[in-house]
Amino acid sequence: MERSELKNLIDAASGRIPSELCVKNCKVIDVFNKEVFESDVYIYGGKFVGFGSSEKPFPEAERTVDAHGMYMAPGFIDSHLHIESSHVSPPEYSKLVIPCGTTTVVADPHEICNVCGLDGMDYMLDSSEGLPLSVFLQFPSCVPATPFEHSGAVLLAPAVEKRINHPRVLGLGELMNYVGVQGAYEDVLDKMLVAINNGKVIDGHAPAVFDSALDAYSVGGVLTDHECATAEELKDKLRRGMYVLLRQGTVCHDLLNLLKGVNIKNQEYCLFCTDDCQAKTILDNGHIDNNIRMAVEAGLDPIVAISIATLNASNCYNLKDRGAIAPGRRADFVLFESLKDIRPVEVYTAGNHVASKGQYLAEVAHFPVPAAVTGKMNVRNLSVESFDLKLKNNRAHTIKVIPGSVVTEKNVVTVDLDEKGNWKRNDEDVVKIAVVERHHGTGNVGLALYEGFGLKGGAVATSVGHDSHNITVAGDNSEDMYAAVQELIRLGGGMAVVTGGQVVCSVEHEIAGLMADKSGREVADELTEIQEIARKTLHIRDDVDPFMTLCFMSLPVIPDIKITDCGLFDVKDYRFISVEAEEE
Amino acid sequence: MERSELKNLIDAASGRIPSELCVKNCKVIDVFNKEVFESDVYIYGGKFVGFGSSEKPFPEAERTVDAHGMYMAPGFIDSHLHIESSHVSPPEYSKLVIPCGTTTVVADPHEICNVCGLDGMDYMLDSSEGLPLSVFLQFPSCVPATPFEHSGAVLLAPAVEKRINHPRVLGLGELMNYVGVQGAYEDVLDKMLVAINNGKVIDGHAPAVFDSALDAYSVGGVLTDHECATAEELKDKLRRGMYVLLRQGTVCHDLLNLLKGVNIKNQEYCLFCTDDCQAKTILDNGHIDNNIRMAVEAGLDPIVAISIATLNASNCYNLKDRGAIAPGRRADFVLFESLKDIRPVEVYTAGNHVASKGQYLAEVAHFPVPAAVTGKMNVRNLSVESFDLKLKNNRAHTIKVIPGSVVTEKNVVTVDLDEKGNWKRNDEDVVKIAVVERHHGTGNVGLALYEGFGLKGGAVATSVGHDSHNITVAGDNSEDMYAAVQELIRLGGGMAVVTGGQVVCSVEHEIAGLMADKSGREVADELTEIQEIARKTLHIRDDVDPFMTLCFMSLPVIPDIKITDCGLFDVKDYRFISVEAEEE
Repeated sequence: MERSELKNLIDAASGRIPSELCVKNCKVIDVFNKEVFESDVYIYGGKFVGFGSSEKPFPEAERTVDAHGMYMAPGFIDSHLHIESSHVSPPEYSKLVIPCGTTTVVADPHEICNVCGLDGMDYMLDSSEGLPLSVFLQFPSCVPATPFEHSGAVLLAPAVEKRINHPRVLGLGELMNYVGVQGAYEDVLDKMLVAINNGKVIDGHAPAVFDSALDAYSVGGVLTDHECATAEELKDKLRRGMYVLLRQGTVCHDLLNLLKGVNIKNQEYCLFCTDDCQAKTILDNGHIDNNIRMAVEAGLDPIVAISIATLNASNCYNLKDRGAIAPGRRADFVLFESLKDIRPVEVYTAGNHVASKGQYLAEVAHFPVPAAVTGKMNVRNLSVESFDLKLKNNRAHTIKVIPGSVVTEKNVVTVDLDEKGNWKRNDEDVVKIAVVERHHGTGNVGLALYEGFGLKGGAVATSVGHDSHNITVAGDNSEDMYAAVQELIRLGGGMAVVTGGQVVCSVEHEIAGLMADKSGREVADELTEIQEIARKTLHIRDDVDPFMTLCFMSLPVIPDIKITDCGLFDVKDYRFISVEAEEE
Repeated sequence: MERSELKNLIDAASGRIPSELCVKNCKVIDVFNKEVFESDVYIYGGKFVGFGSSEKPFPEAERTVDAHGMYMAPGFIDSHLHIESSHVSPPEYSKLVIPCGTTTVVADPHEICNVCGLDGMDYMLDSSEGLPLSVFLQFPSCVPATPFEHSGAVLLAPAVEKRINHPRVLGLGELMNYVGVQGAYEDVLDKMLVAINNGKVIDGHAPAVFDSALDAYSVGGVLTDHECATAEELKDKLRRGMYVLLRQGTVCHDLLNLLKGVNIKNQEYCLFCTDDCQAKTILDNGHIDNNIRMAVEAGLDPIVAISIATLNASNCYNLKDRGAIAPGRRADFVLFESLKDIRPVEVYTAGNHVASKGQYLAEVAHFPVPAAVTGKMNVRNLSVESFDLKLKNNRAHTIKVIPGSVVTEKNVVTVDLDEKGNWKRNDEDVVKIAVVERHHGTGNVGLALYEGFGLKGGAVATSVGHDSHNITVAGDNSEDMYAAVQELIRLGGGMAVVTGGQVVCSVEHEIAGLMADKSGREVADELTEIQEIARKTLHIRDDVDPFMTLCFMSLPVIPDIKITDCGLFDVKDYRFISVEAEEE
C-alpha cells in the first residue's frame, strides 16, 4: 500500500474528503456481532471507510445510492471449486456467478493443469486478472492424480515453488493423494513443504477419513476438507482444527447432511463451496447464494449462514481484506430484500456496481485463448482397429454403472466373440469403453467393457476425463468409436455423439479440451442439447448422465473399478487387471 | 520446516514410530466444537500428533503420564502486556507466569524502547529466546509517546523496518497516538505501512473512541483494542472487525464490565490480556488463568473462556501453530481439575513439563544484562536548586491526584512563597513534583505542584515514568528531592524514599531503570517494603499508591494535567502552561 492510499482512506473516514460512494438506508449484516444494524455505508477507493454517525455526519459523497432498507451483506466467497467444471473460461465464469453474489472464489485449476501444466496455471491466472470476480487459485497438488495414467504434465515441488508466491495463489490445492500424505511419500511431502514454508494454506480432500488416519492426514497442516459427508465426520475434522466445507454442486450434495452437525459454537470453522458446478446448475439454482438459501431453509440462522459464506472463508484463506462490512475492507457487497430467502438484487465489487437483478453489468472483455492451452489433441497411430477388443475367453470383467454415482461396481459377464476373437455386441447392456491418450502421442488406448449405460448403435466421446483428461469413448462398435474420437481431435476437444459413422452432434471445448470459449448460457444450452440427442439417438439410460458419468470412468481413485489409458484398474486392489475374467 | 520433521510427525501420527509422550486419561477441551471429549493425547517433537483410537491404538509412547481424568486445555495466551511493568526480566517473567498456565505472550516492549531504543528491543528479544514461555513482541509504535517530552530514543519507520520481520515480532505495538492516526500524520502512517506491507498485525489503543472517529482509527487496519471499557464500546469495536481485549491487570480492571457484552455469537473476536501487571499481582492472583476464572465466575461458559484465552488469540496474531489441542499444533497445554475454578496443576510447553502445582520446573539460566541497557542515568547539571520552584505570584495550578486513577484534575490553589520567591510548604496537601530528564543530559527539569498525595517531610522518586521514563520525584523540599534523584542515579535506576537528607529505603532497577535483575518474589517483596516505608515515613495517603501513582504523572496523553521534563502540560488544551495561575 502507498502512503497516499492510506491517507485518503483515513481522510475519507474522518470526513476531511468526501467519500466516493454512499449507500444509504442499509440494514447492515454485522458478521462479528452476528446482528443487523441500520446505517448508511461509505466507500472510498474500493473500500468501506465507515458508517458515519448522527452526531458527526460525513460530508456528502460524490455519489449516493439508496438501498431503500435492503440488507447489505459482504460478497460471498466460494471456498473451493474448479472453474473447468462449468466448461466456461474464467471471464465467463465471473459473468455467471457475480449476479449470484459470489464475489470471490478459491479455485483449484487441477483439471487444466493436468492437461497443460504450468501453461494451464498461467492461463487461469492471466484470464482472471482484473475481473469483477476475485479469482484466487490453489496450486494443484495432484498433477497427475495417480501414477496409473498419462496426464499432460507432471507438476512436482519445484513447479509449485515457481507460482506459490503469486499474489493470487493462496496455497496448495486439494491433497487427494491422502494415501501419499498418510504414508509420508517424499514427493507429496515436498509439495506440502513448499506451502508450509511459504506460510500458505494446504487444502485437503479426505472422504471418510477418521480417527488416527485423520491425525496422520492433518498433522502436517492440511487445513480444509470438502469431502466431508456426515455430521459425525464434520465434528471429527473440526476437532483437529480443519475447516469443513459444506458442499453443494451439480453432482455432490453434502450440505444438508453436514448442516445437522453445525451449530453456533462450531460454525466458525465451517465454509461453503460448490466444488464442481456446471453452467446450467448455476443458471438454474444459483451459486453460493444457493448454499445460503438451503442452509437457512434447513433452519440455520441467516446471519450465521452469511458469516460462513464470508468472514469464515476470509479467515481460513488469509483474505482479511474482505469478508465483512467494516472499515478498510474491500467494498464487495450484496443487497437483498429478505433474510428468509436471500436473493441478491444488487452486487458490488470494490465499490463498483457489477450486477443488478440477475444481470451482469460489467463489461466482459474477451480474453483471447492462447495457443499454449488449445489444440491439446496429440493422438497417434489410431485406427478403427484400435477399438477392437480381443479376448481370450468369453468371461469378462465389466465396469458397471451405478446410476447417480461416480462409484462403479466390478462385475463379470459372459460375452460373445466374433470369428477373430474380438468382442461383439449381444443382447446384454454391455458396450465397449476406451480411454485414448491425448497428451503425448503414446498411442495408448485402454479398452474394457462397460455395463449399464444403455447405449445402442453408436458411440459417445468426451475429452473431459477426470483427472488426466484423456479421451473417453463408449460405444458398441469400433467404427463409431473411432469416428467420435476423430471428431474430438478435429474440434480440439469437446463432446461428440456418433451413429452409423456419422457425427450427429458435437460440442467444441477448445480450451484444453475442457472449456468452451463461449458464454455460460450457450454452454448450458449446448450441453442440454447434446445430452438429449445422445439419449434419443443412442438410447442411453434415463437415470445416467451420458457425459458426466462417462467423464468419471477414468478416475482411478474412486472405487470399485475404472479405466485409464493404461488399462482396466481395480481400485480396491490398487492394480491393473485383465479384461478377461477366470473361466467358469 | 525440514522434510524429516514433517515425515516424523506423520509417522508418529500414523503409529509407524512411537510418540515421545502420551498423556493418557485426559478430558480434552476441544475449542473448535467447544466441547470436552475423553482421550489419550500423543505428542512428538514438541507437537500434538493425535488422539489415537480404540480400533487402531497407537504403539506405546516412549513416555506416558497419567492425567487421571484432569482437563487438558491449550496453553493460555496473553494478547497484550508490557513485561517491564512486572519489574522483572523476561526469564524471570517466564518463571512467574508459566505456573499460571500462560505459555505465550504478545509483549510490547514500549517502556524499555523509550529508554534504550533498538537496544531495548534486542535485549527483550535476546533474553526471551528459548524460554519455556513463548515471548512474541510487537514493535513499539510510540517511541516517544508524544513530542512534549524527551525519551531515550526516537524510533521511526526505518527502525520498525529493521526488526519487523524478526520471527518473533508480530507487528506494530499499540498505536496510542490515535490523534495521529485519525489525523493521518505522515510519521504515523509510515510506521503503519511497514506493518501493512509486511502482512503484520497493528495493535490499537483507543479509549472511548466511537463512531466515525473509530472508523478513521480502524480503516487503516488497526486490528485490536485493549482500552475498551464498556459493553457498548466493545460492540462498536467488534462491528469494525477489531479484536477487543478483556483486560485485567494490577490497575486496570475492565474484564467484568466488558463481559456484559460478550456472548456466544461474538466471542470469536474477544481476547484476554493483563497489559500491566506487577509481580506481586501475578503471585497473588495469577495471570490469564485469573481472567478465565473471573469470566467463568461471572457466568461465561468455561469452554468459551478457554477459547478466548487460546484459539482466538492464535487467530488474531497468526499464531496458528498453537492455541488448540490438535494434530500439528505446539504441545503447549495445561492440566486442571475443575471447569468451575480453573487452576493449572501441570503445565507443558512444546511437550516439556515446565510447571507443577505452582512450581516452575524449567531451569532458569541467568541472562547477563548487557551494558547497552544498564546505566541509563545521563543526568547533568543537577543541584539542590534545580528543584526550587520560583513563582511570580501565589496562585498556582496543581496536578491533583484522583485516588485509584491515573487521570488527574487540574486545580488552582493559593501557595506560600519564601523571601526569594520560591514555593514553600504550607499546611495544604500540596508538594512539588519534578521530572528530571535522564537520557541525554539535557539538564531539563520540569517542575510543578502536586496535590492530594499526602506526602510530608521528604521525597519519593522513581525512574519508571510513563512513557519516556525520566525520573519523577515528589517532595516538599529541594534537598530531599535532590537526594532521592541522586540515589536513583547511583543505583542506575529504581525507587527511593528520602527524609532529612537520608535515603531510608531504595530499590534497584538496573535494567533500563525499569526492571530488576532479580526474581519476581524478591521484586514483589521489595516493592511491598518500599511502599510501606514510604507511607509510614512520609505519610503518603492510604488510597494512593506512592510509586504506581507517581509514575503515571508524566504521561501527557492521559487527562487532565501532567508534567514532563519540558514542563507542566494541559492535556485537554494539548499545550504547556505555566505553573502560575491568573491572580484572583
